[in-house]
Amino acid sequence: MLGEILDAVRRESPLVHCINNYVTANDCANLLLAAGASPIMADDPAESAEITARCRGLVLNLGTPDSRRLEAMVLSGQEAARRQLPVLLDPVGVGASAFRREAAARILASFPLTAVRGNMSELRTLMGLQSHGSGVDAGQPDNVTEQTLPDVLSFLQAFSRKTGAVAMVTGEMDLVCSGERVFVLRGGHPILSRITGSGCMLSALTGAFLAARPDHPLEAAAAAAASMKLCGERAAAALLPGEGSGFFRVRLIDALYNLTGEDLERSARYEMR
Amino acid sequence: MLGEILDAVRRESPLVHCINNYVTANDCANLLLAAGASPIMADDPAESAEITARCRGLVLNLGTPDSRRLEAMVLSGQEAARRQLPVLLDPVGVGASAFRREAAARILASFPLTAVRGNMSELRTLMGLQSHGSGVDAGQPDNVTEQTLPDVLSFLQAFSRKTGAVAMVTGEMDLVCSGERVFVLRGGHPILSRITGSGCMLSALTGAFLAARPDHPLEAAAAAAASMKLCGERAAAALLPGEGSGFFRVRLIDALYNLTGEDLERSARYEMR
Amino acid sequence: MLGEILDAVRRESPLVHCINNYVTANDCANLLLAAGASPIMADDPAESAEITARCRGLVLNLGTPDSRRLEAMVLSGQEAARRQLPVLLDPVGVGASAFRREAAARILASFPLTAVRGNMSELRTLMGLQSHGSGVDAGQPDNVTEQTLPDVLSFLQAFSRKTGAVAMVTGEMDLVCSGERVFVLRGGHPILSRITGSGCMLSALTGAFLAARPDHPLEAAAAAAASMKLCGERAAAALLPGEGSGFFRVRLIDALYNLTGEDLERSARYEMR
Repeated sequence: MLGEILDAVRRESPLVHCINNYVTANDCANLLLAAGASPIMADDPAESAEITARCRGLVLNLGTPDSRRLEAMVLSGQEAARRQLPVLLDPVGVGASAFRREAAARILASFPLTAVRGNMSELRTLMGLQSHGSGVDAGQPDNVTEQTLPDVLSFLQAFSRKTGAVAMVTGEMDLVCSGERVFVLRGGHPILSRITGSGCMLSALTGAFLAARPDHPLEAAAAAAASMKLCGERAAAALLPGEGSGFFRVRLIDALYNLTGEDLERSARYEMR
Repeated sequence: MLGEILDAVRRESPLVHCINNYVTANDCANLLLAAGASPIMADDPAESAEITARCRGLVLNLGTPDSRRLEAMVLSGQEAARRQLPVLLDPVGVGASAFRREAAARILASFPLTAVRGNMSELRTLMGLQSHGSGVDAGQPDNVTEQTLPDVLSFLQAFSRKTGAVAMVTGEMDLVCSGERVFVLRGGHPILSRITGSGCMLSALTGAFLAARPDHPLEAAAAAAASMKLCGERAAAALLPGEGSGFFRVRLIDALYNLTGEDLERSARYEMR
Repeated sequence: MLGEILDAVRRESPLVHCINNYVTANDCANLLLAAGASPIMADDPAESAEITARCRGLVLNLGTPDSRRLEAMVLSGQEAARRQLPVLLDPVGVGASAFRREAAARILASFPLTAVRGNMSELRTLMGLQSHGSGVDAGQPDNVTEQTLPDVLSFLQAFSRKTGAVAMVTGEMDLVCSGERVFVLRGGHPILSRITGSGCMLSALTGAFLAARPDHPLEAAAAAAASMKLCGERAAAALLPGEGSGFFRVRLIDALYNLTGEDLERSARYEMR
């Protein structure tokens, strides 16, 4: 089914409203275009809800936050809720400041989320916000391993039940989890962590997949994660001697540009639990 | 004559002030440098007029608008008017929100424009702002075809007469029009629409060409459009198997970097009406 | 010793807080990652000091300034001073507006700087701010030549003594100067000036090197300058026929990604005065 979702993105070219940090906005827009989706970036409260109303999905990215952009996120999120549009939150560095934690808490309290994508520290911080207000749990390992997998899955299921959102934790292993079901995705490549915005790009991509198939958010999120892992592998494998993270970033976009639904369906590696 | 204008840009390296959205600002700066021009980005009212005063041209891009950046645009536009510097407006997504329509209306009312570059929906919205205040005319096809060409030309001539600006509509076919004369440019490549900022980049490039030859705004705008079409074709033709929009974007910059005036003069494809 | 400093960056992966202009923020983040460092971008006064407190170094870049970002710079710089973290200032275009000059003056008056990197015009303007308030000294040549070298060195030594910061002037020749000692670095490639952000990237890189070796700021800054010159040469040498500034930018990141400490130690070209 994952391949069909990519096909739907390419066929329908959903308009996706991204309120994104300025560091990775260009990469996110180019990745969405490579996937066949259509990005709109707008981050001012004076227009954000109106822009959202024209779109089929909304992506909120907490990087480089400020009060103006946060206000736009809240207005757009509420508009998306009125229209039942899918909304993804990427709580970039939410544990890094009180401002980000309060921003995330306000978002969680203001409208429902369809999916949340981040690393384990970020998702733990978000859960703390909803329960007892603690910050980043720095004592917990951020990376998911085979050993920590059972605990992480329990956490993600609890996260998903509490927030009603699909929980996506990405890293060496990606976990995409609704209250009941989980996709475990392996693969990818470590060089993904040596370019800025690989997480932001996956969030934007997931927003496009959710926009194309809002009726199947778990599968849409898994399809986006599987696409990124596959494209990361292919981009890394295509590097010539002497090339590095610069060419990797170019080849990552190209790998997605050339990925077909059939290919994704055949090549995606995951197990369901 | 188009080739001479590119030569002038390379020879004189005009400083161009861009008040640009943050999504494509890096691409616009790199494209201007590849053309031989010199970009300055500054978007705060506290300094924007002073920056404009040091430059030979001004480019206003309505993407990711906010009230601060709009104020800077007005102050810079007025300074440019005082100094008779060429000003180009790119009304990105002007039909997408009331805020953008009001921003564009304020710009149109505050200072004269040398050129306006956008797609047909954007230019139609701008005309509505000046006549009867309607929004995007969604019933009209955005893409210019051989069938709609005569009507579009009439519209552009009216636009140009009313605003005093060169009207540039770009897409599969580019039209560059003053009140009396029109350049019709064919060519280019569809993959231009699969990278973010190809329109913004053309606007920035046009600003540089106008800065080099403010006495010939129609020809300067046509030379910029012809350069982009030619470079788009060459970048697409240079793509190797497995490459896509990522490499296309890199090769587009390189094609412009290597384009000479002589080459542009010989290779530009257009007709005049 | 220069090679060891790069090794330290790769080994320790210092977190570096960049308050950067939005035009080159993506490039700076990618270059830091290519060097093995870890960038955080945050520019709002609501969180900037808290972000700085988590980092090992701070880079302040005056491009696309506004009052909000300036406030964040002051708060972060003061926090860095409290924690004795290295701070680098890149006074981008400081002579271009009164707003930038006042911003720089406020920064100079608010906390100590570890290093300042810019071109000669920018450093002259900064000195003017501290002595007699003049603006850009446009009558002075910006580029350092063998003829002007003695005068420039005297100026840089005075600059360094007055500010307490390592003075870095970069261009065809790079000079990195404390009160007593100077590194003179030749090499590099003119195409570095044909991409946006090569100066910003070097500033960010220097911030990472200072973060790894705050006890040796002169050598850390020289190691960053030498790395950039070497990578510029290699990226330019790797260009194929028909390639230009687009591929150069990709290859520059890759050259740094692949640079080892041993290689830098062996290949860096400089003399000490």
